[in-house]
Amino acid sequence: MPNPTAAMLVIGDEILSGRTRDKNLHHLAGELASHGIDLKEARVLPDHKDAIIAAVRELSARHDHVFTSGGIGPTHDDITADSIAEAFNVPIGVRDDARELLERHYALTGQELNDSRLRMARIPEGASLIENPVSAAPGFSLGNVHVMAGVPGIFKAMLESLLPRITGGRPLLSRTVRINRPEGDIAGPLAAIAREFPMLSIGSYPFFEQGRYGSYIVIRGQEERLIEAAERALCDAFGGDAP
Amino acid sequence: MPNPTAAMLVIGDEILSGRTRDKNLHHLAGELASHGIDLKEARVLPDHKDAIIAAVRELSARHDHVFTSGGIGPTHDDITADSIAEAFNVPIGVRDDARELLERHYALTGQELNDSRLRMARIPEGASLIENPVSAAPGFSLGNVHVMAGVPGIFKAMLESLLPRITGGRPLLSRTVRINRPEGDIAGPLAAIAREFPMLSIGSYPFFEQGRYGSYIVIRGQEERLIEAAERALCDAFGGDAP
Repeated sequence: MPNPTAAMLVIGDEILSGRTRDKNLHHLAGELASHGIDLKEARVLPDHKDAIIAAVRELSARHDHVFTSGGIGPTHDDITADSIAEAFNVPIGVRDDARELLERHYALTGQELNDSRLRMARIPEGASLIENPVSAAPGFSLGNVHVMAGVPGIFKAMLESLLPRITGGRPLLSRTVRINRPEGDIAGPLAAIAREFPMLSIGSYPFFEQGRYGSYIVIRGQEERLIEAAERALCDAFGGDAP
Repeated sequence: MPNPTAAMLVIGDEILSGRTRDKNLHHLAGELASHGIDLKEARVLPDHKDAIIAAVRELSARHDHVFTSGGIGPTHDDITADSIAEAFNVPIGVRDDARELLERHYALTGQELNDSRLRMARIPEGASLIENPVSAAPGFSLGNVHVMAGVPGIFKAMLESLLPRITGGRPLLSRTVRINRPEGDIAGPLAAIAREFPMLSIGSYPFFEQGRYGSYIVIRGQEERLIEAAERALCDAFGGDAP
């Protein structure tokens, strides 16, 4: 059975304006690979409702899961929850269990649960909450869309509570072989090896170190046995080292 | 007149598998902001022809420019040039001027210009070359799609030769105000200020330092005068510092 597939939506003007470097895609990609979910696509979108709605509808129809980061805080530019509700045509409002989480948190920290903060308890109808151990305001899953915070520490914590609830497939295994020859020297035989192993993805990534070009060959797949065979073929062909 | 708009396509299995952290989006975003081109969307795609063709067609129709990174090297997983040619329904083949660039480079470095390396001289009909001062193999522009390398140093160098050829608009100016109060405290008045300045984008980004929450408010727009007025309004409302 093939693995479930996924897409990611990174939401935020700050990424597209060059102010902020996204860190969540790289983290999610690694976690999904270990969990046996194939990340097929990622998109970075501005804080624009129409753009978010269109992407959520398209990607949630195409993939088993969509993971979003960003836009669920208390300020006017946080429009993700409303956009997701609209994408699925469901109402959204303050939910009691989410409000209680915030009440407890702000009572503890001595801050006021004002109207702005209460916005973070607005949850689309039918969603289930994703725990936020860092700052209480929850994420949520609606259908196959999992909505999480943009702050990397909180995204990471939310993903940790979410992933065990999602059925994964076979983890993506990968093995890297370092070959001390430039890509152009090895590309011909490498292509032949890639054709020999159609069930594996074999990628080549050049490096330049101490004045010399070399290639990292990354073998990815789900069958340990096949990966080892491809690794042997590479080492036989190029005398590479499996580090 | 509104600024030209753009999208970016990051092409490569290695980003989606979590092996490699993309660096080119952040660099491109900053350069386009200075050049007066509004980056509206970015997508990360695997090394799959159909996915690349569909995204190139969609985004090149929707935006003034599309910038791609990755997949133009000499190995079997480098399929970007062929995919772009197919997206525009034009033939692709080794072009004399691109071949000469490679011949000169490999003569200098004492490497063989074999069939694999010659693949890097395959250019879609009607494209113009983008100079690669690092390793010779050129990028190209076909219509409004600009195809560049994935290796960050080469991407950067190619973008530097490309950008002066592209007509930009008014640079995106931005100013950051640091407010030593948590987002939830300031969100109400902040929303009112954002409504007062509909021509500006005003974003709020929380921080946590030395046990205290605070907010960076980023004001973005093209009118210095408006940005300064919004900055004054913020400082008046919250006693923030403009660093």
